[in-house]
Amino acid sequence: MFKQKSENHTKIIKIALIGFGNSACRLAELLIEREKEITSKYRVKIIVTAIATARGGKIISKEGINLMLALELVRSKRSLAELDKVEVLENTLDIIEKSDADIIIETTLLNLNNGEPAYSHIKQALLSGKDVVTANKGPLAFAAKELFKIARAKGVALRYESTVMDGTPVFNLVKHTLPLAKINRIRGIVNSTTNFILSEMEMGRDFAPSLEEAQRRGIAEADASLDIEAWDAAIKATVLANCLMDANLKPSEVIRKGISEIKKTEVLEAINRGKKIRLVIDIERINSSIQAKALPTEISKEDIFYNIDAFSNILALETDLMGTLMIVEQDPTLTQTAYGLLSDLLSIIEDKINL
Amino acid sequence: MFKQKSENHTKIIKIALIGFGNSACRLAELLIEREKEITSKYRVKIIVTAIATARGGKIISKEGINLMLALELVRSKRSLAELDKVEVLENTLDIIEKSDADIIIETTLLNLNNGEPAYSHIKQALLSGKDVVTANKGPLAFAAKELFKIARAKGVALRYESTVMDGTPVFNLVKHTLPLAKINRIRGIVNSTTNFILSEMEMGRDFAPSLEEAQRRGIAEADASLDIEAWDAAIKATVLANCLMDANLKPSEVIRKGISEIKKTEVLEAINRGKKIRLVIDIERINSSIQAKALPTEISKEDIFYNIDAFSNILALETDLMGTLMIVEQDPTLTQTAYGLLSDLLSIIEDKINL
Repeated sequence: MFKQKSENHTKIIKIALIGFGNSACRLAELLIEREKEITSKYRVKIIVTAIATARGGKIISKEGINLMLALELVRSKRSLAELDKVEVLENTLDIIEKSDADIIIETTLLNLNNGEPAYSHIKQALLSGKDVVTANKGPLAFAAKELFKIARAKGVALRYESTVMDGTPVFNLVKHTLPLAKINRIRGIVNSTTNFILSEMEMGRDFAPSLEEAQRRGIAEADASLDIEAWDAAIKATVLANCLMDANLKPSEVIRKGISEIKKTEVLEAINRGKKIRLVIDIERINSSIQAKALPTEISKEDIFYNIDAFSNILALETDLMGTLMIVEQDPTLTQTAYGLLSDLLSIIEDKINL
Repeated sequence: MFKQKSENHTKIIKIALIGFGNSACRLAELLIEREKEITSKYRVKIIVTAIATARGGKIISKEGINLMLALELVRSKRSLAELDKVEVLENTLDIIEKSDADIIIETTLLNLNNGEPAYSHIKQALLSGKDVVTANKGPLAFAAKELFKIARAKGVALRYESTVMDGTPVFNLVKHTLPLAKINRIRGIVNSTTNFILSEMEMGRDFAPSLEEAQRRGIAEADASLDIEAWDAAIKATVLANCLMDANLKPSEVIRKGISEIKKTEVLEAINRGKKIRLVIDIERINSSIQAKALPTEISKEDIFYNIDAFSNILALETDLMGTLMIVEQDPTLTQTAYGLLSDLLSIIEDKINL
């Protein structure tokens, strides 16, 4: 109510899409579909001045790339270099540097060992004074403190809502709606693939065909061991610990066990005892240190976690002032992940307008 | 990251507590307990310059009221007029007018017929250019559009987070974390008393002793029919519809049925069929109009609502861009309600600092 929009004319916001896979393409669609609404509400026109893909080329266009055409090319496995009036570069870091973008949207693939190349992309963008939105967990899991420090020093934003529960508000929820509250524990089901496999096994299906179906539906990571061996859950636990509980964990420090050794008979036997097995992350403040686990855990049937089936996710935040608050994402689709990127982007834009 | 605190000195923020029952008293305690943290984080010192109680007096003190002493007096059923250096007034509207407060915290009791006297308190405060935080559903159910219009015209804030789920973020969640998303349907369990009674009946207890226990624990409204006849749920549905779905409903337009006619045998018979009966609100956009219901509803055991027992609450927001998002408040206490007031207060202060 206090904030006054200081300008009446439309401001141009330039963004660069670093990574142009499923979620970035869906974001591009949302930017097209919602263009009028965004311009009328935020008084900005968002133009994409650079796109870097792994196999479809890396291009810059200072006047703005035609997103419709870019989407068509990528979907037909052609190169973005075919677009008119674009400059083609070889190196993604050059793209970031020369794109003239205000905001970088980083959605390259997760690397489990060191968060690269996303880490370098984000670091370079922040050092160049650009705001960053990322869906990539790696940089936050491996270098959150360093990246936040650079962002603070440069006076730019680093947003990462979609790293843990797609577009479901987690980090923005804590930042904007839980002032002063201290989070003492976070429990959650945050890996859709394992949750789907366990849910299917409860209905009598075997492990292998359940995994295949998750892959067929595009939910499982390309490298299925990331999901099955609980690496995805462990990395998400690390991001939550580092970003919401001020920890300094590494993914390798999370006590971790996957679901590959769980047999269908075990799952069914648990059901008979009124229990379900779920891959649960549990991050707890114990004295002054933070301990994180990602383990198959029996859930009793009175627990709200019991009905988190298939692709749904849940997080329970235990706080000092607000008791326990849970957030559920029901059966997410690609749109939700893209929406996480969009909501981060719009919140950065809103802050810019309020300057 | 863009926002710079423009001042380094501590700013005085004056607030008036209109209503000084359980939740306002708990807020006063939180302001005492967290004073240092608030001053260090927000660079403000909050002082209470007026308190209006129903039976303990109405006082003003321009230098600030000693909250410790005020709490002691109220708890021993003595009058606030006993405090040193306070001016005693007869009329709450005079208190609001003369308090010199920047922000009014309205927590008087709910009136089902017209939202008075909270409506007049809030309207007067807004017209005098004061920001308002309220925990009272009445004014939002009866006059949301009018009050928002006044707030906009006067450039002040009207916040009401604790009206529906105590301090659990609902309105602030939508405002701050779901940009552009349109809410098409809201379902929820939002009345703790009926939920507790139904949960107890499932365990074999009768209706009357279950209600008595809810009252003994301070959860049920003083007038139990507000809960039992689903008026509380209907009013909350109205507030959600008017504030999140741009409706213009009145509580009497909500299709409403209470739980007073539900027999223990029905509850147990439902359990045997794998169902629970819960008082569910359901607000739906149907074509261009909004329809709201508050009805006893059978929940099947696969539903996440099934495990919302006792005093817990849930809201499911169905949106166009973010799919279905649920928020659960587990076993709230008085602190959560007070925290809702505190978080609204701090968010107004944050906006003021960023001016």
